[in-house]
Amino acid sequence: MRVLGVDPGLRNLGWGVIEVTGARITHVANGICHSAPGEGDGDLALRLVSLYEQLMAVIRTYAPDQAAVEHTFVNKDAVATLKLGQARGIALLAPAQAGIAVGEYAPNTVKKTVVGVGHAAKVQINHMVRLHFPGVHILGPDAADALAIAICHAHHMQSAGRLSLALKRAAG
Amino acid sequence: MRVLGVDPGLRNLGWGVIEVTGARITHVANGICHSAPGEGDGDLALRLVSLYEQLMAVIRTYAPDQAAVEHTFVNKDAVATLKLGQARGIALLAPAQAGIAVGEYAPNTVKKTVVGVGHAAKVQINHMVRLHFPGVHILGPDAADALAIAICHAHHMQSAGRLSLALKRAAG
Repeated sequence: MRVLGVDPGLRNLGWGVIEVTGARITHVANGICHSAPGEGDGDLALRLVSLYEQLMAVIRTYAPDQAAVEHTFVNKDAVATLKLGQARGIALLAPAQAGIAVGEYAPNTVKKTVVGVGHAAKVQINHMVRLHFPGVHILGPDAADALAIAICHAHHMQSAGRLSLALKRAAG
Repeated sequence: MRVLGVDPGLRNLGWGVIEVTGARITHVANGICHSAPGEGDGDLALRLVSLYEQLMAVIRTYAPDQAAVEHTFVNKDAVATLKLGQARGIALLAPAQAGIAVGEYAPNTVKKTVVGVGHAAKVQINHMVRLHFPGVHILGPDAADALAIAICHAHHMQSAGRLSLALKRAAG
């Protein structure tokens, strides 16, 4: 099973694809979709189109079976939160349009899964993801975050699978 | 020239299409794209896909030449702002993907254009839009807001047109 993780952002949208075979997780690809702010009216709409097309190209190239997006918001600033929301709308729309189920995980859930504690620093997540995939070139913190989200989703799918197996055994 | 106005929202996304012929503005159609909250994982992504498809159907049916979206954010609540941002991402993406230029207007600009003052109440906008299009059935406050945004865009296009004509005459 292939999982696409997405760390949404308007300027830099991180993505990472992993392959899950039983308990083994391997790296497939990672990267960042960029949309630099331009000038003039209609600029934001064109940036969103660009993000959408870049993310759709990733989905076509790596054909993930599942997707996961971080459920994040910036408390400090309504303008930043609105911008993030717009990028997040695209991050959720693109895989769903491609017929892929999209999971959502709170930042603390991602941190707990990857680092072991809910309040880990961003730098720790980066470190753990790099440890997870030795020798893999990770294109920046946003791509590392996206891989962390994909790993989190894989672990939750496996736990759900084990749970459903355990329940079946208990019922049988 | 046909203008599509959009009042973004995740549960109710208002839209209105007007026809602009010289100084005359006529009503073409208005409505609301709904996406009710469901249950379970992946629900938000499917709601965004539904909003996108409904808005794309409006664009195909009424073939607007220009679009305008309100540049709004909710200050009180980061969760509400993020939700609005996600719906707004779709509202900007759909027309831009259809090759239509998308203008953005602050709520105060819309109010100033339609009611005459920047701090008008929502009920006043509704009233002025209904006065603008007597006999037209408007499907709710979100659709009325969307028509107000379209009217605002038409006025700004006309002012820009007059200004460019005046400048040409002054230069000639």
